Amino acid sequence: MPVTTKPRSPRKTGTTAKSAPAGRTTSTRGARSSTKAAPGRRGATKWVYLFEEGNAQMRDLLGGKGAGVAEMTRAGLPVPPGFTITTQACNAFYERGEQFPDGMWAQVLASLKTLERQTRKGFGDPVNPLLVSVRSGAKFSMPGMMDTVLNLGLNETTLQGLTRLTGDERFALDTHRRFIQLFSKIVLGISGDLFEHALGAVKSKHGAASDADLSVAALQEVIADYREIVRKESKGQEFPDEPLDQLRAAIGAVFSSWNGKRAVDYRNYNKIAHDLGTAVNVQSMVFGNMGEDSGTGVAFTRDPATGEKVLFGEYLTNAQGEDVVAGVRTPKPIAAMAAEMPTVYRQFERIAKRLEKHYRDVQDMEFTIEHGKLYMLQTRSGKRTAEAAVKIAVDMVHERLISREEAVLRVEPVQVDQLLHTRIDPSAKVEVLATGLAASPGAAYGKAVFDADRAEALAKAGEKVIMVRIETNPDDVHGMIAAEGVLTSRGGRTSHAAVVARGMGKPCVAGAESVLVDLDGRRFTAGGKTVYEGEEFTIDGSTGRVIAGKVPTIQPELSGDLEQVLRWADAIRRLQVWANGDYPRDAELALRFGAQGIGLCRTEHMFMEQVRLPHVQAMILSATTEERKRHLDELLPFQRSDFYGILKAMAGLPVVIRLIDPPLHEFLPSFEDLLVEVTQAETRGDPEASFADKRKMLAAVRAIREQNPMLGLRGCRLGLLYPEIIEMQVRALMEAAVQLTKEGVKVYPEIMIPLVSTLEELRRSKAYVVKEIDAVFAEAGVKVHYKIGTMIELPRAALTAGAIAEEAEFFSFGTNDLTQTTFGFSRDDAEGKIIIPYVDQKILPSNPFETLDRAGVGRLMNIAVIEGRQTRPDLTVGICGEHGGDPASIAICEKLNLNYVSCSPYRVPVARLAAAHARLATRDADR
Amino acid sequence: MPVTTKPRSPRKTGTTAKSAPAGRTTSTRGARSSTKAAPGRRGATKWVYLFEEGNAQMRDLLGGKGAGVAEMTRAGLPVPPGFTITTQACNAFYERGEQFPDGMWAQVLASLKTLERQTRKGFGDPVNPLLVSVRSGAKFSMPGMMDTVLNLGLNETTLQGLTRLTGDERFALDTHRRFIQLFSKIVLGISGDLFEHALGAVKSKHGAASDADLSVAALQEVIADYREIVRKESKGQEFPDEPLDQLRAAIGAVFSSWNGKRAVDYRNYNKIAHDLGTAVNVQSMVFGNMGEDSGTGVAFTRDPATGEKVLFGEYLTNAQGEDVVAGVRTPKPIAAMAAEMPTVYRQFERIAKRLEKHYRDVQDMEFTIEHGKLYMLQTRSGKRTAEAAVKIAVDMVHERLISREEAVLRVEPVQVDQLLHTRIDPSAKVEVLATGLAASPGAAYGKAVFDADRAEALAKAGEKVIMVRIETNPDDVHGMIAAEGVLTSRGGRTSHAAVVARGMGKPCVAGAESVLVDLDGRRFTAGGKTVYEGEEFTIDGSTGRVIAGKVPTIQPELSGDLEQVLRWADAIRRLQVWANGDYPRDAELALRFGAQGIGLCRTEHMFMEQVRLPHVQAMILSATTEERKRHLDELLPFQRSDFYGILKAMAGLPVVIRLIDPPLHEFLPSFEDLLVEVTQAETRGDPEASFADKRKMLAAVRAIREQNPMLGLRGCRLGLLYPEIIEMQVRALMEAAVQLTKEGVKVYPEIMIPLVSTLEELRRSKAYVVKEIDAVFAEAGVKVHYKIGTMIELPRAALTAGAIAEEAEFFSFGTNDLTQTTFGFSRDDAEGKIIIPYVDQKILPSNPFETLDRAGVGRLMNIAVIEGRQTRPDLTVGICGEHGGDPASIAICEKLNLNYVSCSPYRVPVARLAAAHARLATRDADR
Repeated sequence: MPVTTKPRSPRKTGTTAKSAPAGRTTSTRGARSSTKAAPGRRGATKWVYLFEEGNAQMRDLLGGKGAGVAEMTRAGLPVPPGFTITTQACNAFYERGEQFPDGMWAQVLASLKTLERQTRKGFGDPVNPLLVSVRSGAKFSMPGMMDTVLNLGLNETTLQGLTRLTGDERFALDTHRRFIQLFSKIVLGISGDLFEHALGAVKSKHGAASDADLSVAALQEVIADYREIVRKESKGQEFPDEPLDQLRAAIGAVFSSWNGKRAVDYRNYNKIAHDLGTAVNVQSMVFGNMGEDSGTGVAFTRDPATGEKVLFGEYLTNAQGEDVVAGVRTPKPIAAMAAEMPTVYRQFERIAKRLEKHYRDVQDMEFTIEHGKLYMLQTRSGKRTAEAAVKIAVDMVHERLISREEAVLRVEPVQVDQLLHTRIDPSAKVEVLATGLAASPGAAYGKAVFDADRAEALAKAGEKVIMVRIETNPDDVHGMIAAEGVLTSRGGRTSHAAVVARGMGKPCVAGAESVLVDLDGRRFTAGGKTVYEGEEFTIDGSTGRVIAGKVPTIQPELSGDLEQVLRWADAIRRLQVWANGDYPRDAELALRFGAQGIGLCRTEHMFMEQVRLPHVQAMILSATTEERKRHLDELLPFQRSDFYGILKAMAGLPVVIRLIDPPLHEFLPSFEDLLVEVTQAETRGDPEASFADKRKMLAAVRAIREQNPMLGLRGCRLGLLYPEIIEMQVRALMEAAVQLTKEGVKVYPEIMIPLVSTLEELRRSKAYVVKEIDAVFAEAGVKVHYKIGTMIELPRAALTAGAIAEEAEFFSFGTNDLTQTTFGFSRDDAEGKIIIPYVDQKILPSNPFETLDRAGVGRLMNIAVIEGRQTRPDLTVGICGEHGGDPASIAICEKLNLNYVSCSPYRVPVARLAAAHARLATRDADR
Repeated sequence: MPVTTKPRSPRKTGTTAKSAPAGRTTSTRGARSSTKAAPGRRGATKWVYLFEEGNAQMRDLLGGKGAGVAEMTRAGLPVPPGFTITTQACNAFYERGEQFPDGMWAQVLASLKTLERQTRKGFGDPVNPLLVSVRSGAKFSMPGMMDTVLNLGLNETTLQGLTRLTGDERFALDTHRRFIQLFSKIVLGISGDLFEHALGAVKSKHGAASDADLSVAALQEVIADYREIVRKESKGQEFPDEPLDQLRAAIGAVFSSWNGKRAVDYRNYNKIAHDLGTAVNVQSMVFGNMGEDSGTGVAFTRDPATGEKVLFGEYLTNAQGEDVVAGVRTPKPIAAMAAEMPTVYRQFERIAKRLEKHYRDVQDMEFTIEHGKLYMLQTRSGKRTAEAAVKIAVDMVHERLISREEAVLRVEPVQVDQLLHTRIDPSAKVEVLATGLAASPGAAYGKAVFDADRAEALAKAGEKVIMVRIETNPDDVHGMIAAEGVLTSRGGRTSHAAVVARGMGKPCVAGAESVLVDLDGRRFTAGGKTVYEGEEFTIDGSTGRVIAGKVPTIQPELSGDLEQVLRWADAIRRLQVWANGDYPRDAELALRFGAQGIGLCRTEHMFMEQVRLPHVQAMILSATTEERKRHLDELLPFQRSDFYGILKAMAGLPVVIRLIDPPLHEFLPSFEDLLVEVTQAETRGDPEASFADKRKMLAAVRAIREQNPMLGLRGCRLGLLYPEIIEMQVRALMEAAVQLTKEGVKVYPEIMIPLVSTLEELRRSKAYVVKEIDAVFAEAGVKVHYKIGTMIELPRAALTAGAIAEEAEFFSFGTNDLTQTTFGFSRDDAEGKIIIPYVDQKILPSNPFETLDRAGVGRLMNIAVIEGRQTRPDLTVGICGEHGGDPASIAICEKLNLNYVSCSPYRVPVARLAAAHARLATRDADR
């Protein structure tokens, strides 16, 4: 009995229904149609499947929802019976010009008969009415499609049955009201606002504050008003009270919703094919509010907070699902059910076990008990905390429920990250004063201090301190080392404070602009509170929160279970995981977390420490090469001892040392501060000699500063213009390497030349490096194995990687810089002003500094990997930008066939897991 | 008679010579060797060609030099006779283990006999000695190879003949000395220093200041010393006095030099094949110093300065070539020869005509007259001035000597540029005070002024002024408009001063750091001179010179001949030439110079004019969208009238209007100036109200300024965050377009969205643009044809051009920005500090901001062109970066199949010619 209708147009639905043309047989249709007939039964297409006839593999035909409910039924669970009309039927519907295909309606009616038998209820039966839900269900979940229609089959007659069965006339009337409203909106296409207005009017009239306050009489009034609305909007047509008319119209509406604008847009956006069609699920309704032998609840097969293997959940007797959610009545723990309904509880326990075994994962289940009969309404994988995820994964392997690979996939990398930082105790009440950028994860509390020297002094005296600055600079580093964490009111995620704090693994909230820092007054004000020096407060670098007072925190542990999962991940992954680290302590931490090498040792951070900075500044300000060399000679022992420590800590593993990279002005005092000081001195008429040094420094900084320092004199350009700097660095490194070799320690230094844009830059830089290495080897009489390679961090380097690989033994993608130049985004400037608004407005899908941009940056990387290896097949390629610790980016690195990712030590466990996930995804895609 | 020698090792040369093994026939050799035998004569390879046997097409076999001299001989010119030993012989030499191939030496001896006959001299003849030169000559010119050995054949005996023939014993002895020195160094491989020391010793001993002061006796002493050096360095071997030994050794040395380190390195660097081999040219010497019936000279077939068709040159009787060059004697104009040697002169005239006709170009000829017999030593295309190049090219077409295509190729684009700017009169004596960057070409003089208002006032009073500033900013623009030219002591080629001056076509010298500008004192000091306000001085923006006083200049003309050449070029080229121009006056100029459209109209330059800037600043500082819109409304009439003017001027042609691009801080006062002023006021304790405005402006500038503005909030990012700005611009443009359409003027506006890095940015920007356009059309009741496209100026835009072309109707490469991000070079910072040193040190082949980098930037462009046209086959693609006016870059644009180049109006004629050159080169390469 096909429908010729646009189901959203109520005037046609149910009124223009015609019988199928008599002369047409389904067999001839089948031959002319592109719809594939179900195999086996020639000519008689099976359009409708009872739940028990399907299974999880039939997603194409039954849709995701239909296949899922079929699987539950098949697993022997007490699911409210029902049937699914196939996606094929939907396509046939369109091929016939929006008419049901021949035979479909007859199959629906036959299935309905089965349902009546199974439930012992009758569709339209006034005493024991069968009510059904009608849901769309495509192969892929599609939020843009038709919502669910519940309680279909209700009318004035069946309402009586419902009232009697539940003993609750209010409930029955309210259910009827809701059904008319939902059906009219979804199936008949009448604006929901009309019904809301009518409801509101009755509520005002009766002085009812909420829907629940409406009396039986008031509800009857509402229903009458609703029927009038339908009559008016449908040009005199009555609301369809005949249950079969309701069902036919609802099925037609689901089919039509497949080509509704929202659904089409959604498929276009998500690149889903338009010819898949949607299935329709018709399922019998059950009620938990049919007396004290009825009830409803939700439960997990294991504790989702701890992972403990106990049934966990809550339930209510004589209640509907909404009651549990609405919080009107307080639900009881699931354990109470054991006493109140012991038989049902035991059945539920058995089902829970079976479900977990069947789906091989923790299940989050919804159930209803109707007159002592248990129905499973839904089951799905249960969301769980990081701790629970890890424990459950390991337990399930031990229970032989899942494989190690599955266990690895059951833990999300982000959960590992959560487990590895000090966190604010989630049960603590906190007063948030301000929110800045989550610049370096972890939580910390301590006394507020406003300068580095004070921080250092207090820390030496055993105090915990948080260093507060407007922004930090190299002069502050010793204070940052002493502090528990850092708060700045200015600067982005790559500001000095953020970068240094991340390198140290200390919490940092940066750029908290609503924090007014008064350095002279030694206090800050935020959220209406003023915090004076010495007062305790808390920062949460994982969320960017600045919190009043001292808040309890939870310490991270690399628990046994987590270690187990990571070891399994190690066995799966192809990508190596290295760490970025500048100090021996970083190397030790990285090793503890499982790093297989140091992928980026930034030598300039070594320059920034307080005792060294004056030598660095003197070196920069040197007028002659000789003078510069003299100051470099003073720096050499420091660098040598740094290198000695890091190489020793990483004995037997590769350590990639990057030669000096940042523009020189980063080592000098702020131009603005100097300008103000000199101007003040001049204006006051101070004696010339009293500020001659400042004036000189100002002139030097002015000469060195650049309009766009990111694109200026830095990286290998510095080394090519001042070779003596890299000569010193290479000598310090190789003297350390030679010394360790003599001590019997195996070292694998790899020298990395940054910011190369042409082969010739690399060739010349390498020549300086090799010459110095040869000199050190000659002096020492010992040789050490080493490699020389380059960062690929400029588009031109990627585009000419084939040539650059002639000289480079390894590539390391500096994706922070590569993203900056590929997009033309200065990270410091753009992250707050442009990128965050762009992500908000969906101009960008995500922040490209957090997750690699596959189309642009990824394409350059792909060119570099492929062409670099064409020149040098054994080229090692890694990534050392911050993307190296981001799971989505690691997945791209796996696809690009990199050798390793390198990230901050604290991200190493995350990367180990993410690399395993990426490997499994790629392997599965290859299959 | 093969030589088994490394010719640089004198101990073997000439002493280990062996006869060819008797049992070996050339025919069997030929069969086993890869050397191809000359066709026709089976078994008897022709290793040696007399000059008269070769021609210009035989470069592979005879080398470039041999083929050239053969061609002259073949053309019937009196060339000193000689012969060429083939490149094949060189290869055979190597195949035989550095021995002459069989038969070669016999052919050399036979050819030498021919030479003796032709010259009526004898090799080794004491009375009338034949002397020869021996030169290498590969297919491609190779500076790394053997130098020439002159006067080979000289010894104690033939010296007598030379003395008698020239009547100049000093000359003969000096020639002999030079020969021994050169031969020893080049053929015997003895260090030249030894000879220089010996010569110096004799000069000291005889008190001779220069070589020319050495007496006959002293020269004899030198020769004796030289012979002693050879004896010592060759372990007792004497200098080879036997001419045939000299010749054999010299030929072997040439062959061996092919595999010398310098030559191999050169070929590697220049990617020249190593198996080409070198030929050896042996040519008889002639002497112009054999009496008054001898002489030497140089001449051009036309005047190389003016192009006038007259023989032009100079000569000396009884002199050698060196005498003309050395300036010891003053040469006479070539016309004097007509009287002194009428017969020879007439012969020379005839030869000159024949040569010009033969080579179809102006010839620069060297000749020698030996005893009344004229010899042509060399002829080559003559270098000429820009004026001459143009006149000669046009004249030769009229004389039917060359085709129009050839005429077009005879003028270099750089010559057109020279003709189109005011130049310093080359004959003027100038005093250069300083040299800065040649920031905008042309010369200008005027009175020094130090601020914009004064410049404007003086200019209104009819004075010519040059504006002098440390650097310029938008406040200075009205002064720059009034001035003849601009001088700044700071800033690069893209500084404000440079960009604005180039846009205006005014001369500018920027970043002249040795010019000390004292704004308060209204004077500048440079080169030890102080120039006060009102004093005249001159700048040359083509060379960067700052010149004392008023220097005469030459005005540019688009002369009839130049126009003719450009019209011929127009008929050849495929690339269109458009112009960048922001004002109606630019458009008019561009049209006069032949532009076919406006490829870049920078709307923000319109913002910078003095009356508008306050509105622009108020707009930027607006706290609300409404306030911003109010200020934008005030700007609208200005923009509309600008657009009206430019569209009208370009009636019938496309005009590409770029929406606002630069970061907003560029429209605001300098942060540094404000900071100093506010700090001063604060320090002085000025009343708060007196500098509240400054303080407010300082805060605004501080909020807006960026660490790397080049990569910050600019381009389409501005428009997406403040759509009201582009809405105003689009409205102004379209209201102008609609108005003109109503007036019957055909307009073709094309709206260009800058700094796009993702498709989505373009899609959203375009939506704002289209919405505003539709609104204007609806109000006006008129529609205008328009296009919307985008700049491709970020690597990501190029890498995702296939997607971007879905929304863009045209692409325009912004290669300034694209070069910046591809290389990671901030032009302002890097040009002086990095790029110029890089080019000096050959790390870069050229400045990538001047000539497109093919490997990196060019590859991105290629990706964008190909993938953009895959999406949209009719996509128009142009370039509007400064490369659009650079001939080498235009050649790349031709290869990339762009539709047009766009450059500053003054570069349009250059680009027209360069585009024709590029077309011809590509076409020829395709053939």
